[in-house]
Amino acid sequence: MTIEQKLQEFGVVLPLAPKPLAAYVPACLAGDLLFVSGVLPFHDGKLTVTGKLGQELDVAQGYEAAQTAVLNALAIMLQELGTLERIKQIVRMTGHVASATGFSEQPAVINGASDFLLKVFGDAGRHARLAVGAAELPLYAPVELELIVQVNL
Amino acid sequence: MTIEQKLQEFGVVLPLAPKPLAAYVPACLAGDLLFVSGVLPFHDGKLTVTGKLGQELDVAQGYEAAQTAVLNALAIMLQELGTLERIKQIVRMTGHVASATGFSEQPAVINGASDFLLKVFGDAGRHARLAVGAAELPLYAPVELELIVQVNL
Amino acid sequence: MTIEQKLQEFGVVLPLAPKPLAAYVPACLAGDLLFVSGVLPFHDGKLTVTGKLGQELDVAQGYEAAQTAVLNALAIMLQELGTLERIKQIVRMTGHVASATGFSEQPAVINGASDFLLKVFGDAGRHARLAVGAAELPLYAPVELELIVQVNL
Repeated sequence: MTIEQKLQEFGVVLPLAPKPLAAYVPACLAGDLLFVSGVLPFHDGKLTVTGKLGQELDVAQGYEAAQTAVLNALAIMLQELGTLERIKQIVRMTGHVASATGFSEQPAVINGASDFLLKVFGDAGRHARLAVGAAELPLYAPVELELIVQVNL
Repeated sequence: MTIEQKLQEFGVVLPLAPKPLAAYVPACLAGDLLFVSGVLPFHDGKLTVTGKLGQELDVAQGYEAAQTAVLNALAIMLQELGTLERIKQIVRMTGHVASATGFSEQPAVINGASDFLLKVFGDAGRHARLAVGAAELPLYAPVELELIVQVNL
Repeated sequence: MTIEQKLQEFGVVLPLAPKPLAAYVPACLAGDLLFVSGVLPFHDGKLTVTGKLGQELDVAQGYEAAQTAVLNALAIMLQELGTLERIKQIVRMTGHVASATGFSEQPAVINGASDFLLKVFGDAGRHARLAVGAAELPLYAPVELELIVQVNL
């Protein structure tokens, strides 16, 4: 089963690849490493949710936002690579979580993205990871993800 | 026209490559990827500006600080590579913006660096990017940039 | 003298490699770059210290926490590589420091990790670096480190 077929099976429709918010590109390939720009929980050109964890949002909402954000990363990869079959390994993901004072469950939030990658990619989705608490994020997004992916050239 | 000639044409004088603030090196090459240490808006050995966006500083001031900071990254690359002509591609930039509560325009700030890279390097300056809001930055700097660059060996 | 012998000479006992806090892996190898997941100052399965710099903790305590955290990164590398002798170069370290408002000495804190790497690895420990202030970190940890390491295959 291809990755695209798996996404279908899970009932997942990828969003349009997000347009950069500013003067940069969605992803840049160096050797066989694809560096994907920061992605936010966009769907149909809008953030599905805004606010900080530990304030407007709880962990379950953050988890869902992280999953939505990672779909945007997949949409970028699809756009850049032509097919998600070219992904050899999700190498590293950094998850920035907009965190109100006292919120320390960033890993549980970013699991929304990690769990999804594991489910869809299997072993190729097993990535190194970092989760940190940001003071603020662009457009009041609750999460921003950054991925490095190894691809088949 | 070489990159150095372009910089001259734009009236840009690179600062001295900043000395690390601590126990590390300005850049580290692994394969053909040059990882540049975090740079702040230094000029003549001093920060040109301090403070947080959304508090002491507005977007225009942050934009200028980001441009100043990226000049420090170029100064490091020049020092490490001998010539900026060896730069094949600016691959990824992360921009940390010292953000007061409620400030969410990090991308507009980091554009000060991205716009400059595009102007000077053209296609080779088209990078993946991440902009996040930091609670605090070293020396009360408003922005800190981190770059990964692909070089010709 | 091997790295392991040096650690012994310095009286350093590596902790157990930390188990990921969530749905990811401790490290991921892509080509000859090992991307290590975020590490916290764990020892014997517990954080040795919690709190923010500039609030509960001073620079000396943060410095020590950074050293403890980097031991966890070494433990992961040892687990992944079999021996620390395979480390060719510590390439890049990012240090996130949980920072109370007004704390701007992130570099002095992260030196706890950088100084240790230089002491143990010599030239191979000379890394590019970034130190930033986080609003919050997982489990109220004071520091979180992320490393990229070049290894001999």
